[in-house]
Amino acid sequence: MKSVDAILTNACIITMNDDFDLLAPGALAVREGYIEAVGAVDEIMSAYESADVMDCSGCAVIPGMINGHTHAPMTLLRGVADDLRLDVWLMGYMMPVEQEFVRPDFCWLGTQLACAEMIRSGVTCFADMYYYEEAVADAAAQAGMRAVCAETLLKFSTPDALSYDESLEHTHDFIQRWKGHPLIMPALGPHAAYTTTDDLLQQCAQLALEFDVPLHIHIAETEQEVDEHRAAYGMPVVPWVKKQGVFEAKTTAAHCVHLDEGEMRTLRNHGVGVVHNPSSNLKLASGFAPVAQMLDIGINVGIGTDGPASNNDLDMWEEMRLAALLAKGVSGDPTTLPARQALAMATIGGARALHIDSHVGSLEVGKRADISVVDLRSVHLTPKFTRDPEAIYAQLVYAAKGSDVRDVMCQGQWLMRERALLTLDEQALMEEAAGVASKIDAFLIQREESVLRKLLAIGEVAQTKMFEVQVKVLLPDDASVEKMLSGPGIEIVKPSVRRQYDTYFLFEDVYHSRLRYREDEVLEETGEVEDVFYRLTLSTETKEREYERSVLLSRSRFDAPATRSLRFYREYFNPESSVRVQKKRERYRVRYGGTDFAINVDRLTQPALPGVFLEIKSRTWSRQDAERKAELIGEMLALFGIQEQELLKQEYVELAMEAERLESGS
Amino acid sequence: MKSVDAILTNACIITMNDDFDLLAPGALAVREGYIEAVGAVDEIMSAYESADVMDCSGCAVIPGMINGHTHAPMTLLRGVADDLRLDVWLMGYMMPVEQEFVRPDFCWLGTQLACAEMIRSGVTCFADMYYYEEAVADAAAQAGMRAVCAETLLKFSTPDALSYDESLEHTHDFIQRWKGHPLIMPALGPHAAYTTTDDLLQQCAQLALEFDVPLHIHIAETEQEVDEHRAAYGMPVVPWVKKQGVFEAKTTAAHCVHLDEGEMRTLRNHGVGVVHNPSSNLKLASGFAPVAQMLDIGINVGIGTDGPASNNDLDMWEEMRLAALLAKGVSGDPTTLPARQALAMATIGGARALHIDSHVGSLEVGKRADISVVDLRSVHLTPKFTRDPEAIYAQLVYAAKGSDVRDVMCQGQWLMRERALLTLDEQALMEEAAGVASKIDAFLIQREESVLRKLLAIGEVAQTKMFEVQVKVLLPDDASVEKMLSGPGIEIVKPSVRRQYDTYFLFEDVYHSRLRYREDEVLEETGEVEDVFYRLTLSTETKEREYERSVLLSRSRFDAPATRSLRFYREYFNPESSVRVQKKRERYRVRYGGTDFAINVDRLTQPALPGVFLEIKSRTWSRQDAERKAELIGEMLALFGIQEQELLKQEYVELAMEAERLESGS
Repeated sequence: MKSVDAILTNACIITMNDDFDLLAPGALAVREGYIEAVGAVDEIMSAYESADVMDCSGCAVIPGMINGHTHAPMTLLRGVADDLRLDVWLMGYMMPVEQEFVRPDFCWLGTQLACAEMIRSGVTCFADMYYYEEAVADAAAQAGMRAVCAETLLKFSTPDALSYDESLEHTHDFIQRWKGHPLIMPALGPHAAYTTTDDLLQQCAQLALEFDVPLHIHIAETEQEVDEHRAAYGMPVVPWVKKQGVFEAKTTAAHCVHLDEGEMRTLRNHGVGVVHNPSSNLKLASGFAPVAQMLDIGINVGIGTDGPASNNDLDMWEEMRLAALLAKGVSGDPTTLPARQALAMATIGGARALHIDSHVGSLEVGKRADISVVDLRSVHLTPKFTRDPEAIYAQLVYAAKGSDVRDVMCQGQWLMRERALLTLDEQALMEEAAGVASKIDAFLIQREESVLRKLLAIGEVAQTKMFEVQVKVLLPDDASVEKMLSGPGIEIVKPSVRRQYDTYFLFEDVYHSRLRYREDEVLEETGEVEDVFYRLTLSTETKEREYERSVLLSRSRFDAPATRSLRFYREYFNPESSVRVQKKRERYRVRYGGTDFAINVDRLTQPALPGVFLEIKSRTWSRQDAERKAELIGEMLALFGIQEQELLKQEYVELAMEAERLESGS
Repeated sequence: MKSVDAILTNACIITMNDDFDLLAPGALAVREGYIEAVGAVDEIMSAYESADVMDCSGCAVIPGMINGHTHAPMTLLRGVADDLRLDVWLMGYMMPVEQEFVRPDFCWLGTQLACAEMIRSGVTCFADMYYYEEAVADAAAQAGMRAVCAETLLKFSTPDALSYDESLEHTHDFIQRWKGHPLIMPALGPHAAYTTTDDLLQQCAQLALEFDVPLHIHIAETEQEVDEHRAAYGMPVVPWVKKQGVFEAKTTAAHCVHLDEGEMRTLRNHGVGVVHNPSSNLKLASGFAPVAQMLDIGINVGIGTDGPASNNDLDMWEEMRLAALLAKGVSGDPTTLPARQALAMATIGGARALHIDSHVGSLEVGKRADISVVDLRSVHLTPKFTRDPEAIYAQLVYAAKGSDVRDVMCQGQWLMRERALLTLDEQALMEEAAGVASKIDAFLIQREESVLRKLLAIGEVAQTKMFEVQVKVLLPDDASVEKMLSGPGIEIVKPSVRRQYDTYFLFEDVYHSRLRYREDEVLEETGEVEDVFYRLTLSTETKEREYERSVLLSRSRFDAPATRSLRFYREYFNPESSVRVQKKRERYRVRYGGTDFAINVDRLTQPALPGVFLEIKSRTWSRQDAERKAELIGEMLALFGIQEQELLKQEYVELAMEAERLESGS
């Protein structure tokens, strides 16, 4: 009798080996972290002895599941914001919160929480892609879980690096430190084609080859990504990524929702694994990945939960079931992706996709002892039909749940027994997580309090505190405008002509904030559109005041390029109401009294108001300067023969609001 | 202080009332089966007292979920057969097993098992449609669950009635006996448009109106149903069902996967509720129901699990999550069907769809106390963000699971506390179910043993044990055929000409069974196809023998009309191999020696063999008669000048197999 560390016996052993052998009843012996033997109960019990013999009557013993793609620390962002458009969710919530909160301790805590959840549902290995992967690696190793830890590299600054050079440097160090760890495989995670550069991808591929570590990347998650990529590079995502040498490495591509057949063949030919994330693809409305086709072509396809912020959990049983069901719905054929194949994707298929199938993914002698015991003795798994032994696959995939997992072992170490976690203090983790959540809540509450904070949160805002001196007057016709501009002492720089489409978001906050979204079409002399600018401008009423010469001084506005759509901003800022103003503007740069002014000659089309509006404006950085400029404007007004009572004190947005009120009143 | 039966306090109470009020923390008082009060903790605790005060700290209290469409007794068929085409699954497995096993005790046991599973996941009410609904009603009532019990009515015979008149009669009695029961609503379940008749639907509608009971029907589950309905009636399913007066009743339509907008408006205008079954629709590849559109149009849409044989469980949490995710994937818009709406569908929306919203579906004073307590204190629900109180909906829909339900009450009675079932003996039910499963296994094993039994299992087989005397000869040309048929003593009845496309399924069973699928095109004199017959014929080699005059006597074949497709039979019978034979046949009815014979003059196109084959055949019922006929055939052969050595002893299928062997050998 050979002594071993543990024996699992009287189980239905689902090997997931090449022949899909089932041993019912069977037994399995574990020694020094490896599977020592798998066989019939008698055979194993007569050859091995152990102080740790686990009776698995009524249970299935399966390979530990492999979560092929996740962002584990994002457990701490689970439920921060849901049911939003992808851009609002990502750029309005995830990224600002990440920028504020993601630090090594955040990643460590989030990963430990993720490990607790994954172990509870029978996962023994996960492929991660996030920031501070060293903290992820450490948290996973302490939990006793196996992990491929891919450090995210972006062309932008990240929470853990200001530039990608810096990212490459610390990823290099991270790999050197962790390479060879019994549980952790350090890896490179260039985020995606659209968030990296050719150079960054090439450097990642080189590093992956140099250290023989895996490379993890998002590919073709959304249709927009693919369309934009084609427009920019004249080819789909896969060939472009291939061109950067990425597929020379042991690469795994997450998502792959929008691929053509040629791209699939490229992935197959280069041994690139794919990880399918069905819940996330539905929740973010990314689309339906061509899973059955990829499997048919011979790609190794695994299953992932994606990050818990877009799922909202890490339950591989839900993903496996959904993968199997969805493929049938998409193909219109209920024999597509049968149960056995779905379980394979969650185990050995995932191992192949992650290039770690030589040591995990199936219950075979010589592989690491990564094992889950699933208790089948509950009502939702009753009854059992034994006529066809393969019926166990359907039972596991269509009816079993994460909560049926009773015991979990990784590399021979028990991580859970009888549903009690052995390597993690769940209660403490939950309490710590609650603390982080309340800080994130506070951050978001504070941000939501003012439109300005929300604007700042999405970045790229010019936080310059400018002041603006301005005056406005309504003139009956073009003739009077020309007369003024040709007046003495006024030097005119060549004008530009624009059509401006403004949408004002109005807020009932304490500042009566107004946020203007402007589409600014610059016209050529022919009237053709030469260029378009999109800007966001926030102004707050409370800071306005009037000068003696009836010139208004606004405490000036916060300005940002509007890089996203009007729809995005409308959903993100969620204003109480909105008003549109459209006009044609002749803009003149003017010098008067040795000072720069802007003169706008505006004709309003929305609201459609008769006459020509003349605005004189000047920006300033100080109150004193503002007063001096107000004086100069007063002089110009006198020169133009405009009386104080002719001055309009309302902004265009106010005229528009008034017009709307009149209209709805009639 | 008013005394009440139970108080649930310190909960987040999710009322699902019209204003979607959330009370966090809140309390709820129950008295005599009804909700007596809902309010803030202080308010309730200062006004009511009870011996049963449940602390719900860290829990959500939600309305008991409503499973809007299921076939509860089918728990006993869970996992019998999976990953098959709909017709193979339904007609090859479900129906034969149902015909053999479905009796009142089966339905009672299956329903109790279903109740155990549903209570465990927080369901307090379900809408059922099956046979022996009285047993379903009794089982549900004993479990303490609320149920709408719709007795299935079909134009065919069912496990509980030989004809629909009989069904109508016992449904009438069932309704009379159960109408007014505090938990059970008896109802009519005309199965679907394609399985009923206009008269049957009309009678169901009348009965529903007469007794003011609900009517439950499947509508537009598959594209095939809709296409065939249009072809048969020149209109889609909904208007035709409406024409039968069905929508005058309180009707609920399950599935509704393939509706046009006009049909949706019809359902809305008639207050017909719809129940969406996302798992089943995917698993059986029925399609993607236009849920978002139906909700937009204003239809009351609930959620159902469908029967556990096509799901394979009764987990409303999975369905709710899937409904929310799938709608986003289908619309391409992640804001479609947000979490609150999904939870509404599983509670008040389901109640509306079933026309029972006046007394269940939300936590409001005066409604029945149907309540579930969901424990939110687990890792997969960590952390919680409280900034937006409505975030609880996303937490429940996207991350919570059936196993998080801690306590369940129906009509003021606790059905589960601290995850212990109080009205059901789960262990005993599971043991009984195991007994049934092993009987079903034995039935299927026995059936699978012989192709004949499988053929018999799908019905309509002519089980006549005929014998056939036959002889076959190859002639060089048409001239010799004509000469024979014009010979003395032979009287010819007008021939028919056919093209016959045969596929033989070959089995390596002990009988060397051959199953022939024949497509028999009867041709007009012009060569046009007049009619087509499809037949299945099973023959078994072992019973063949030769007579002295070298005439073969086959123990004859089992015959059945082939009402389903070749593909169906191929998947259902799963033969070892198959061979095709195609020929043009002139068939003559002939009288010789006062006896009827059939003479076939065949020209083979597959395998393409030269010459003309002549067959003489006669059916017989006894060995003596067979010998007499063999003698007569011998006379005819002599008359035709055919020598014994010219006779072909092979069947066409054997010639085809030989041809295939030669071909693959070359």
